[in-house]
Amino acid sequence: MNFNSLAALYKTELFENVIPFWLNHSLDRECGGYFTCLGRTGNVYDTDKFIWLQAREVWLFSMLYNNVEPRKEWLDAAIHGAAFLEKHGHDGALNWYFALDRRGAPLVEPYNIFSYTFATMAFGQLNKATGNPRYADIARRTFEIILSKASNPKGKWSKASPGSRTLKGFALPMILCNLAMEIEHLLSEEILHARMEECVHQVMEVFYRPELGIVVENLTADNQLSDTFEGRSVNPGHAIEAMWFVMDIGRRLKRPELIEQAKNITLRMVEYGWDTTYGGIFYFMDRKGCPPLQLEWDQKLWWVHIETLISLLKGYELTGDRRCLEWFERVHAYTWDHFKDPEYPEWFGYLNRRGEVLIDLKGGKWKGCFHVPRGLYQCWQTLERIDRKATLITPTPKTETLCNENLL
Amino acid sequence: MNFNSLAALYKTELFENVIPFWLNHSLDRECGGYFTCLGRTGNVYDTDKFIWLQAREVWLFSMLYNNVEPRKEWLDAAIHGAAFLEKHGHDGALNWYFALDRRGAPLVEPYNIFSYTFATMAFGQLNKATGNPRYADIARRTFEIILSKASNPKGKWSKASPGSRTLKGFALPMILCNLAMEIEHLLSEEILHARMEECVHQVMEVFYRPELGIVVENLTADNQLSDTFEGRSVNPGHAIEAMWFVMDIGRRLKRPELIEQAKNITLRMVEYGWDTTYGGIFYFMDRKGCPPLQLEWDQKLWWVHIETLISLLKGYELTGDRRCLEWFERVHAYTWDHFKDPEYPEWFGYLNRRGEVLIDLKGGKWKGCFHVPRGLYQCWQTLERIDRKATLITPTPKTETLCNENLL
Repeated sequence: MNFNSLAALYKTELFENVIPFWLNHSLDRECGGYFTCLGRTGNVYDTDKFIWLQAREVWLFSMLYNNVEPRKEWLDAAIHGAAFLEKHGHDGALNWYFALDRRGAPLVEPYNIFSYTFATMAFGQLNKATGNPRYADIARRTFEIILSKASNPKGKWSKASPGSRTLKGFALPMILCNLAMEIEHLLSEEILHARMEECVHQVMEVFYRPELGIVVENLTADNQLSDTFEGRSVNPGHAIEAMWFVMDIGRRLKRPELIEQAKNITLRMVEYGWDTTYGGIFYFMDRKGCPPLQLEWDQKLWWVHIETLISLLKGYELTGDRRCLEWFERVHAYTWDHFKDPEYPEWFGYLNRRGEVLIDLKGGKWKGCFHVPRGLYQCWQTLERIDRKATLITPTPKTETLCNENLL
Repeated sequence: MNFNSLAALYKTELFENVIPFWLNHSLDRECGGYFTCLGRTGNVYDTDKFIWLQAREVWLFSMLYNNVEPRKEWLDAAIHGAAFLEKHGHDGALNWYFALDRRGAPLVEPYNIFSYTFATMAFGQLNKATGNPRYADIARRTFEIILSKASNPKGKWSKASPGSRTLKGFALPMILCNLAMEIEHLLSEEILHARMEECVHQVMEVFYRPELGIVVENLTADNQLSDTFEGRSVNPGHAIEAMWFVMDIGRRLKRPELIEQAKNITLRMVEYGWDTTYGGIFYFMDRKGCPPLQLEWDQKLWWVHIETLISLLKGYELTGDRRCLEWFERVHAYTWDHFKDPEYPEWFGYLNRRGEVLIDLKGGKWKGCFHVPRGLYQCWQTLERIDRKATLITPTPKTETLCNENLL
């Protein structure tokens, strides 16, 4: 495998295909914020604005500015979205709505905790880019609200009967793994470490079930498996995405055994979720083989595959396990063959089980300027690191493929 | 078309296949109520109890008892479910929960208006079967609560921002069309007529849009089309199901022009929703051809097809339009070929676009003892009426097929 040319492939796709798509089509110059409901060619087919995607786009452009180069166009795009979010995205007390109309009038109440997490990420990165303490303040205060809501994220909008079976979900601890490191510069060392330890504990020791060898989506309040629709649900992409967050923490905390475990879970979940008939990774599964609630269970979603590429590459980079590379080759081939649109920029998001395009949007209520560019960035960077190490250690490599298991 | 043997086919399937399935597998003899999460062979894979399906099963067995024959087994099955619903299904003030656990502890709050509508149907039919005034009282009082909630069905569980874009949905007026006639014996003539007029108005003059020729799922509060995800959404099965409710009202009110209109809308919506590539009727569509929100948009669902058979047969019975019969033949063939399980009793519910079984449950959170048996019953009865009329008018029919356009 030629890591150098692979790195170039991911980098080129990011800067020549995907980022221009969002810069060209997404910015709403009239009302502020971003259009995210973009059709195959970039046409705006709906103008509602979803806080998840508004915030993630602010984050993405800020991240590129911080990590790639301080390009004014990127910073301007980030500030453009942040201004809209500051003005319209919350209720004045940093309770972040779920959806706004084009002009910023709230449509859907602040019931969704992930509107808060992505707002935190957005303003944390933008603070890093600008040094503006107002952004830091928004990120820090929103983070505090998230922690205060963690035990009952939906609050008054929860439809669970009080005192009934209460399940806790994997999504929040998973996102918090990433979030703590995202706003590291805004947290004290003590709080940062406490957060990292807690979310690693939740992900790796609570939601990962050694008796099953998999990560489950929901557990009872006292951390037991639940034989219910929600308790049987497995979302391989979710679990795999969490593993690269954990690997990043493992690297940060210098804990190779944590990285090793995250790499093993990545491999396990890719094998578990892989569709041996048509290729690709299933969206939802039932751990007991019961009928899943989600009618879309067998579909192949862009983010699942892109996050898997990241975890496999980081797994290989950090442990040298050649199985990561074997799986990377397979998922890379599937992803580029099926999700990349050969005719127009940006990637498809939704394929049916056979890998045919089910919905040809490039952006919508849930797909925005986030997983594709973040994944291309992460893969590009990881491939470059792998390539540099390989070049450094084996200056005249005879076998380019699968040769650096013992680099670490 | 041999209506007589077709009628026998539907009747046999109802009494020899589908009803025994539910009687054999669904009754929870230990805790009361019904299991509805039943796998392909009838195995119970989950024990949660959903009020929609508990109530619909009470209704179905009561309806058979009332309309077919007073078989004790059916009445016992209905009372078995009703006792559980009375004891556990509501909060003491007839606010009907959405879900209970196996023993009846509430799991999900009474946020869903259709828990109320199906409870009303259930207790209305059971009152008819037993004469028990307690059941009549439950039905009548629940119906009043439904009407009081009609303008804001989700109440405190609504996530719409106050004062924001408010859309009204087609589902409630549609169900109310059916419900008014269901509990006709419990309403004064005046209230019954007012309800029928109102819901026919909503369905046929508000949600049906002559400028588009279709029924839409959501409108603005002032009855305008809305160019939003919800406002563009079309659910052909929903629209078609409503049409046989309207035809029943048309027959009841002796309004042939209403029947004619409902038959025309049925034909229009079947054509609109038909998948010309793989056959079957799509689940969701976007009236402007934009990407739909529902990832399951292209799936083929049992209830859509079964309700379509009813509307087409009633349309034919009541207007003689031969296009109804042509479409009935096509949808009948698709339905029996794809939804009927050739190996085990009851029908599949969820097929992918190609008509392959996507999830092989026979019952779940949304599929219970309702659409299949109600549809078989309605088709059987309608086919027998058509056959009787045909025999009466043309005692020695030379062309059995498509010959009775002018019967009415």
